[in-house]
Formats: sequence, structure tokens, C-alpha cells
Amino acid sequence: MTLTLALAQTRFYVGNISANLTTIIEAACHARDVLGADLIVFPELTILGYPAEDLLFRQNIIDAANNALYSLAEQVLGIAIVVGYPEYDGHTLYNSAAVIHQGAMIANYRKRALPNYGVFDEQRYFSTGTQPCIFEFNGHFIGLTICEDIWQAGMINENYQAGAELLISLNASPFTRGKSQERENIIRQQLNTAPLTVIYVNQVGGQDELIFDGASFVMNQHGEIVFRAHEFTEQLSRIDFINDAPVPSSIAPVLNDLSSCYAALCLGIKDYVHKNGFHGALIGLSGGIDSALVLALAVDALGAEHVHGYLLPSRYTHTMSNEDALAEAQALGVYTDSIPIEPAVTAFTELLAKVLETPSNTAHDVTAQNIQARCRGIILMAISNKQGKLLLTTGNKSEMSVGYATLYGDMAGGFAPLKDVPKLLVYALAKYRNQINPIIPERVLMRPPSAELAPDQKDEDSLPPYPILDAILERYIEHEEAIDTIINAGFDADTVQHVVNLVNKNEHKRRQSPPGIKITRKAFGRDRRYPISSGGRPLKTVQ
Amino acid sequence: MTLTLALAQTRFYVGNISANLTTIIEAACHARDVLGADLIVFPELTILGYPAEDLLFRQNIIDAANNALYSLAEQVLGIAIVVGYPEYDGHTLYNSAAVIHQGAMIANYRKRALPNYGVFDEQRYFSTGTQPCIFEFNGHFIGLTICEDIWQAGMINENYQAGAELLISLNASPFTRGKSQERENIIRQQLNTAPLTVIYVNQVGGQDELIFDGASFVMNQHGEIVFRAHEFTEQLSRIDFINDAPVPSSIAPVLNDLSSCYAALCLGIKDYVHKNGFHGALIGLSGGIDSALVLALAVDALGAEHVHGYLLPSRYTHTMSNEDALAEAQALGVYTDSIPIEPAVTAFTELLAKVLETPSNTAHDVTAQNIQARCRGIILMAISNKQGKLLLTTGNKSEMSVGYATLYGDMAGGFAPLKDVPKLLVYALAKYRNQINPIIPERVLMRPPSAELAPDQKDEDSLPPYPILDAILERYIEHEEAIDTIINAGFDADTVQHVVNLVNKNEHKRRQSPPGIKITRKAFGRDRRYPISSGGRPLKTVQ
Repeated sequence: MTLTLALAQTRFYVGNISANLTTIIEAACHARDVLGADLIVFPELTILGYPAEDLLFRQNIIDAANNALYSLAEQVLGIAIVVGYPEYDGHTLYNSAAVIHQGAMIANYRKRALPNYGVFDEQRYFSTGTQPCIFEFNGHFIGLTICEDIWQAGMINENYQAGAELLISLNASPFTRGKSQERENIIRQQLNTAPLTVIYVNQVGGQDELIFDGASFVMNQHGEIVFRAHEFTEQLSRIDFINDAPVPSSIAPVLNDLSSCYAALCLGIKDYVHKNGFHGALIGLSGGIDSALVLALAVDALGAEHVHGYLLPSRYTHTMSNEDALAEAQALGVYTDSIPIEPAVTAFTELLAKVLETPSNTAHDVTAQNIQARCRGIILMAISNKQGKLLLTTGNKSEMSVGYATLYGDMAGGFAPLKDVPKLLVYALAKYRNQINPIIPERVLMRPPSAELAPDQKDEDSLPPYPILDAILERYIEHEEAIDTIINAGFDADTVQHVVNLVNKNEHKRRQSPPGIKITRKAFGRDRRYPISSGGRPLKTVQ
Repeated sequence: MTLTLALAQTRFYVGNISANLTTIIEAACHARDVLGADLIVFPELTILGYPAEDLLFRQNIIDAANNALYSLAEQVLGIAIVVGYPEYDGHTLYNSAAVIHQGAMIANYRKRALPNYGVFDEQRYFSTGTQPCIFEFNGHFIGLTICEDIWQAGMINENYQAGAELLISLNASPFTRGKSQERENIIRQQLNTAPLTVIYVNQVGGQDELIFDGASFVMNQHGEIVFRAHEFTEQLSRIDFINDAPVPSSIAPVLNDLSSCYAALCLGIKDYVHKNGFHGALIGLSGGIDSALVLALAVDALGAEHVHGYLLPSRYTHTMSNEDALAEAQALGVYTDSIPIEPAVTAFTELLAKVLETPSNTAHDVTAQNIQARCRGIILMAISNKQGKLLLTTGNKSEMSVGYATLYGDMAGGFAPLKDVPKLLVYALAKYRNQINPIIPERVLMRPPSAELAPDQKDEDSLPPYPILDAILERYIEHEEAIDTIINAGFDADTVQHVVNLVNKNEHKRRQSPPGIKITRKAFGRDRRYPISSGGRPLKTVQ
């Protein structure tokens, strides 16, 4: 018995049911007519998009998604379609996969493992399915699972015991570093006791802070990859089966860490800009490594003609900073302009003379530094408002962690590509990009980092060296290690305490930061939900 | 058989275990020694504070909370203590209530109904308890429930059937309008079939966006309130029981809607300022109704000496705006200063001359208006930085909903007291406050609202009249009604579509807004989780 499957590693639009339906119909017809497929598999919750968040509470949207499923069944005949949708049975909502064939639903599966950790809130929306679903199609017995299901020990085995020969997994699995191999490994381990073929289909695209990387695959019962789709790109692929055995097909190589991070960041920028209707992006260019990397990413994501760079020098800006920023922009073919901020800074300094002279609790220079950063924010936002371009902020995760950034200043902007990229990884990604062609001047990679908001300022005046800072941050934030644990691992006690204090007292800044792209195991945003008021002193004087 | 209970309607500090332990010990000793209580009841998750959010993922914090419970048992003898804590049994975390007496834990209950909707994420953290818990104390049979439990039909009855004569409910139940009566009603209904006495203890205080209103009570088996604590204030109260019947005691009146909203907003400001270590608050005073109300709230929350007001007039500011702002500040005894923004606006207008002249997609005046608002943001933030005072933003929920506000401009600030207060309620609260003593000039209440960012500007130039706008917003946001449903209720179709479009396209602004105080059933923030990229167009041109 033969079977020809199509895997639709496609992009979907949260909340745009009609566009998603069109995508499904076009892919299904192509799979049927051009690829000769008997059955096509789409990712999780395809019809409404994933994650739809609280759109799932809107009854009219749920009704429209269910109606779209019926419409799909009527419109596409001659191929079976496995598609994810938010199933509403009149009083309960499920995260479901339907199998549609010849105008009828021949199987329906309700997701059983609803993730409610990290960025996931599925128990906020869905009720839990209670049983496996195995359907017969052209003489094959095929099981259905959805995303988190196969991360549960025993779930694949249960399908195998129940008679499944093939197992389809519909996914909306977000990228994090190393995730694609983690997915393959978790399945491979389970095939020891449950020798069946797994067809893993993941969506692709950026949705706010999440990147879906695709990397769909087919793994045979021996745990061998017989097909792998490219990462970070749409791909509609055909897989043939002869007697339940998949015929080996194209196997895209696994991207290494830097390649995949770079691709994820580009995809995140591209989809955020396009999904939100911006006419490109603009970036403030400081001559530092962060804006250098963001400029390269934006150009690779959007094309040079859709990216503008603005130099905003002050009295503290070194000549080489301007030179380096311009050199990269010219190498990339990006339009630039330069707007010196001194007249605006002077205006505020004069307006605030009385305030700035007052004895204070905060160092004078921090206030003055913030004024400079915020003047840049005003200028860039005015250009963004005027031109309909998205302002990309350039701050990295190390800065976001310790609050080494100015609210409404360099934090002003609609999207923060490096929000989850630690400083050392910023350097590594810049070097990676320069290997393709050398666009970022070597000096940018070599100079000590500086905010250039005060004379001869260096980041290391206020922060530990980045190799130490990033190591402490990874332990404290990603691994949630206690202070004592970090110190016992060999870090200086005062440094650790200082860094942890900075992380904890800057939650209010992160709460007002733009969305950014998750690439680590624990990103700021929905992934890490910390109180702002935390550990505060008791109200000794209640008034 | 007699029994003397103490109800501890107290304030706790998220993440400050040592401070919370001290509070518990002091209250327990006072209850034992001064009130003569046999048993004292504290609110939900007292030891760590509620909601502790992702602090619950930190093993060292969980360990510290559990150790604090053991320490409490050792330190306080002679009174039984019912206290909420995050119970960790070595591999699983529960939201639990322990009963401690004479150095031993005599009962332990694990919460069964874990709310995972609205602002609640309890299934992110806790495993579900499986059984009721009834303990005997001084010859009384007492059941334990925690917060959400008693909102489940049958949970009170189950305790009654299992032999409970009294039912203790530990709560961290946030305020929303009308909530205190809702709580009493939901319990009263269940007493028909389960005639027992309910002791309901709620915490009090502001924690970021949530206000805990207290309003603890004792309801006898006939559904009668025999004790009610004051709302929005700490109170340690004694209740006597004779043969399971509570002796009627003081019954605080239920505050009306406006009184409770006003008190909630004051408490929210007070606790946010103190818990985060600010030296008071500052406010930009426009002469409009929003800043007038925020000024009154801040003074009532913090005292006039801890509040500064700044007038930031431009060429578009009417004389009467300055007059009215000053009149209120003087009536309240608040320090004010005036910093005209023209020099800064001029500096930016000149710097951006080329940009502002470019043909654009956005109306010229919006960019220019934003520059004005952002100049004010820079000035106020510089003062905040310098003085360590919290900048309160003055925008209301109606504006937040439709994006009638400038990011990094009037939205700049650390806390947004009116973020969940619709414009019509702003007026009502201002009038309510004026009934106590007339501090807000009558003209402020009568003038048509204006942002004063352009000549003769009125809010109604861009938005529907507020009675219509607020009604549509309540239907669309709080009740999640579909557009058709709202139109069918009698609203103009174009107006409804326009308002809904504005709400949907301004999610990105709300995402970067400061935290505010939840008072409605659906606040922006953790309560309403919407995608930014939503309904977007497909990528026809992928580049």
C-alpha cells in the first residue's frame, strides 16, 4: 500500500481566518494537483493562527473559525486534510486537529497536554482532551497528536499500542536555541519502545515575540530522519510511503547555533514589520556593536531600500563612532542622515536648570544622560511617526537585564530585535555576519562598549565585564539559580549581589520595553512574569 | 463550647518573607495576648505574598517560605494559626493552608480550584489538591478552603456533608467594582443547602496592578453577615463563637461604587509608591479633568507634602488651564512649578525641519503633537530621576483603549492610576471627591476635554462623544461583544467599526504603558492578553 503525504510548513496570520483559509485551500489544491498527495498535514491551530491569546475568548471569532473548517471541507475534495482549529462544541473549547476528506470530518483529536508554562497559557483557554485518536486512511492506521503531547512520556507508545503505524504531530513550536534537535531527540528516544514513523509539521513565521522555525521532519521507526524541511522558511513537501515505510527524501542540514539565531532574528523583524503594516524600519546608529548588528539584521530582513539609519551625535560622540556607523551603512547601501542633538539637549538643560541644580538622591549625570537618550528618542519617534517606519531599538538582553538603558530614550521604539540576545552573543552574531561579507568595521568589534553619554564613558565603569555579567545573568535568569549557588560556582559575591539587585530593581523598565524576539530558554515578556513590587520594605509609616 | 477567633485582614509583601513572618508573629501574639483569641486566620499565601508570580519558580524562595512556616510554629505557642503558604513536598508545589498549634502542624489543606483566567495564572505554578480538610479544634469541626474554592458549586456543601460546622476561607481576592457584595452573595447562595458559618479573610493592599480590598466577613448559617471588616484598611478583629454560633460583632458598611473606586485608587498609589521606595509622586498638571483627579488621589494617598505638580504650558495651553491647575494645587497645598516647553519644542522643530516637511503617510500635526507631549515627558522624567519621585501618568482607560495618548509623551511615567478608569467614571470620581471638599474647579468639570496640542483642539474632533465611546468600549472590551452585537444594540455602525479598529491597532501602545490599577472586570495588562500582530495582511511580497 502506498501513501503520498504533503507537509505544509506554512505561515499563518493570527486572527486573519480568511487569509489562513485561503492559504490552506491553495496549499491543499497544489498538494493534490501538482504533488499528487493523498493527504496534507498543516500545523497546530492553523485556521485561527497561533498563539491567538485572548482572541480565543471572543465567541464570534471562535464561531468564524469553526465555520471556516466547514467551508474548507466543502471547498476541497480529492485530498484528505489534517488541520488544527479551535474546536467549540457549544460549551467547551478544545485545541483540536480535524481530518477532513470528501466533505466530511473523518477524525477529530483534542489535544491532551496543554502547556501552561513559559510563554504558554493554553489552560487559560482550552479544555483537555481525554483520548487518543487513530484513523484509517487508504489502509493505513494513523495517530494524531498536537505539539506538547509528544513531549509527554508514553504518549507515542500509547498510540503505537493502540495500533497506529504512522503518527502525525501538528505543531506550533517556538524557536529557542538548539530546539530543533531537542525535538528530534525527544521523539527518537520514545521510538525505542514504539517503533512507528512520526510526521512532524511545524509552522513558520514570527508572531510578536515568538519565532516559529519550521524544521518539520519525518522520522522513521528506527529513529532516522528521512526528511527535514529547511528552517525559517515556508516549504510544501511531498513524502511517499510504501507499506508504512517513508521513502527517504530531501534532508535539509541543521543550522548551527549562530546561523539559526541570525535567521530567527531576521524572520522576527520581517514578519513584525509586514504583519503590522510598516513601511520599513529605521534605526539610530551610534557606531556601537548593538546598532551595527541591528542594522545588518534589518537590511537582511527587509532589504536595504526599506531601512533608514540616523546618526544622532552629541558632544560625547567620538568621530570614529560616526565613521564606523557610516561605513557600515554605506557597505549595506542604506540611506542615512545625521541630526546632532545638542540644540535640544541645551534647551532642556536650560529649562531644567533649577531642577538639575537641586541636591538630589540620584547622581546628576544619570539625569543628564537620560535627557540625551530621550532627545534621541523624540527625534527617532518623530521620523517614525512621519514616515510610517518601525523604529527598531538596539538594546541587548544584558542591558535589559540590569537596566542599563533609558526608558523613553534608547528604549523608545516599536520592536527590540536584541531584547533576548546577551551581549557576548551580539558580538558572536556580528562576527558571524561579517564572515558572509565584512560590513561591520573591525573597530566596532574591538572597541570597549560605551553609551557615550558622558566623557570617556565605558560600560565597564558601571557594570562587570560582559563575560562575567552574561554568565551571572544566564545563571540567575535562565537557570533561576540562587545567589549562593552562583557565588559557589566561583563568582565574586559582591558582583553577584550587585547584578541580582540590578535585575530585580529594573523590572519596571522591562515592563515598558518594546516586544522583542525570544531566542533563549527564558526571555523577558510573557516568558518571565515577575512582580515589579517585590521584596519591598514594610510600610512602617502608613500615610 | 466557646471559641474565640481572630481575623487578620493584613498587608503582605510579595517576596519579603522575613517581613511577612514578622507581621504574622506580631498579629498572632497580639491576638493571643490582647484579644484572647484561640485561633487566628490569615489570608491566602501569606508567607510569600500574593501574587508572587514567577518568584514561585525559584527553589530558594520556596525553601525559605517553607522554612518560615516551621519557624513560625516554633516561635508562637498558645494560639492556633491558620496561614497560607506555598507548600513544597520535595517535588510538587501546592497553594496550601496550614494550621499550626503548639509547635505542630495539626492540619494542612491544598487548594483545589486553581484560577487560570483573568489576572490569574495559578495553574502555571501549582498542582491541584484532591481532598477536603476538616480539623477538630477545641471541640469544633472546622473546614478549610482557599479563595477560588468557594466559587465552585458544591465545595461548601462538601465540607458541610463531611462534618464541618465552621468553614474558614483564606483569600487573596482582588478588588473589582462590586466585588465585595459578589463574594458575600456567592457564599450566601450556597448556605441554603449547607448551613454552616463561613469565616472569610481577605488580604489588603496594592500589589502592582491589583488591589486587595479586605472586606473580610463572617456569615452565619442563615446567610446573615454578623461581622464585616472595613474595606481597604488593615484590621485585626475578634469574633466569639458560642456553640458554633458567631456572636454578632461590628459590621462595617459596604462602600458605594464611587467610594470604593476612589479608595482603591488611593490604596494602589500609596502601596506602589511605598513598596518601590519612591520619595513621593509628581504629576504634570494640564488643567484637565484627568490630571485634576490624579492630583487629588495622590494627595489623599500620600499627603500633600509628598506630591509635586508641574505645569508645562505651550502656545496651545489656555490661560484657564493654568489657572485651574494652580487653583486645585493651592487648595490641596501642593508645591507647583511651571516650565514652559516652547524652547524645547522649537529646538526639535528646527532639528527635524527636513523630516517634517517631507510628504508623509501620517498627518503632519500628529507628529508635531507627539513632539510636544514627548517634551513634557522628558521634563517630568528628568525631575523624577533627579528627585526620586514616581511620575504618575494621567491617561484614562478610554484613551488607553483607543490610543489617544502619546507613547513616551503623556504615557511616560511609572504608574498609571486611571489606566482602568473610563472617562465618564473619571468625571464621576472627580465630582465625588468635590463633595468631600470642593478642590477641583467647577470649570474643569464643565469644559469639553482637550489635549491642547493644536489650536482649539477638542477630544471630540477625533473621538466619538465619551458617553458613546465608553459604552462601546465596555461592550467590546469588558463584555467581548462582537461588532454586530454592539451595532444591533443601537450604536452607529461606522462609529463602532472606527472604535474597534482603534482598540485593535493600539495594542502596541498599551504593551508599553506603565502599570495601572485594575478596577473593572477586564483591565489592560495581565488581565487582557491580546496579540499585537493580529488580523494582519498576508505577505504577498515576501522580502
